Amino acid sequence: MKFSPLVQELIDSLKCLPGVGAKSAQRMAFQLLERNRRGGSKLAKTLAKAMTDIGHCQQCRNFTEEPLCEICQNPKRQLATKLCIVETPGDVIAIEQTGEFFGKYFVLMGHLSPIDGIGPDDLGFDILIKQFASGQFSEVILATNPTVEGEATAHYIAELAQQYQVNISRIAHGVPVGGELEYVDGNTLAHALAGRKAYEI
Amino acid sequence: MKFSPLVQELIDSLKCLPGVGAKSAQRMAFQLLERNRRGGSKLAKTLAKAMTDIGHCQQCRNFTEEPLCEICQNPKRQLATKLCIVETPGDVIAIEQTGEFFGKYFVLMGHLSPIDGIGPDDLGFDILIKQFASGQFSEVILATNPTVEGEATAHYIAELAQQYQVNISRIAHGVPVGGELEYVDGNTLAHALAGRKAYEI
Repeated sequence: MKFSPLVQELIDSLKCLPGVGAKSAQRMAFQLLERNRRGGSKLAKTLAKAMTDIGHCQQCRNFTEEPLCEICQNPKRQLATKLCIVETPGDVIAIEQTGEFFGKYFVLMGHLSPIDGIGPDDLGFDILIKQFASGQFSEVILATNPTVEGEATAHYIAELAQQYQVNISRIAHGVPVGGELEYVDGNTLAHALAGRKAYEI
Repeated sequence: MKFSPLVQELIDSLKCLPGVGAKSAQRMAFQLLERNRRGGSKLAKTLAKAMTDIGHCQQCRNFTEEPLCEICQNPKRQLATKLCIVETPGDVIAIEQTGEFFGKYFVLMGHLSPIDGIGPDDLGFDILIKQFASGQFSEVILATNPTVEGEATAHYIAELAQQYQVNISRIAHGVPVGGELEYVDGNTLAHALAGRKAYEI
């Protein structure tokens, strides 16, 4: 005995969402069917549109339904001399929210990960090299995650960028602001010590 | 700075799923866009179809795209004299998997919960009363969850059923098979003691 064919198909389809297994998918299906058909129909419509219409920005590879994303379209940013390389669109939002960066971005949409079969071809390095070669940028900021894969990706990009006349920098690793030294892991603390700067009075 | 309008709309729509907040919705959107557009499109199609086509079985209220569900259509079950009342379609599957029940079901699609505004009208009691009145059933098994709301719902249904010539039973509460007494909560243990039966040698 199983659910009716269409209910079962709905549950199976929901399992394509990350972090959703059989039980969660079942709960989602019942919730939508019983309490929120309007939301479910809206999700179906938006999802269908998004899957066909959303592509990558031609310059920065961020998700957008236009040829260029909002940031790359911004006239003030078009003359930027700083290029910040991040892993995901979420990282762009996070950096934008600091209000401290006014340059352009390049979104890798992941990191080098041979074990998952993700190599340089999947991260748009061909477009990135064109950006380096354009001569527009005087500084490239490597803002990949401070993980093993993120560091490896940063290293790979740094080697690529070396051939062009750009300064290459990496975001600082250290103790998070507002944290307590006692609870910071040893590796981070070691980085914080090694990266110490002269104290400005 | 936000995501592009369609990406943001997709993230907002995904938040209608239960247990999915802003961060999970963002992760789901990126995962589908970057790694599984085919799965996303299939989900959109199935979801649209499910939201319009799936209704309730006329007899048992379970989800089905036909007028009657598979169980109610089964000729062997049509003569059943036992009616098992459960809260959700998942409960039907769970009981079917035991292979010990061959009667019919009635799915409440929830439980009485005044705090959520769910009253008798939302649980299909009008259809349930017709089932009692049909004279087909000699026994009604109350298999709602052993929670406060489930017990209240069972009590309410028992009072309804009393007016008809049916035996009313409640599934047993006690220690789960394979469990250890030491780790069973006091309330369950009290039920297990109160519900003790003569030992059959």
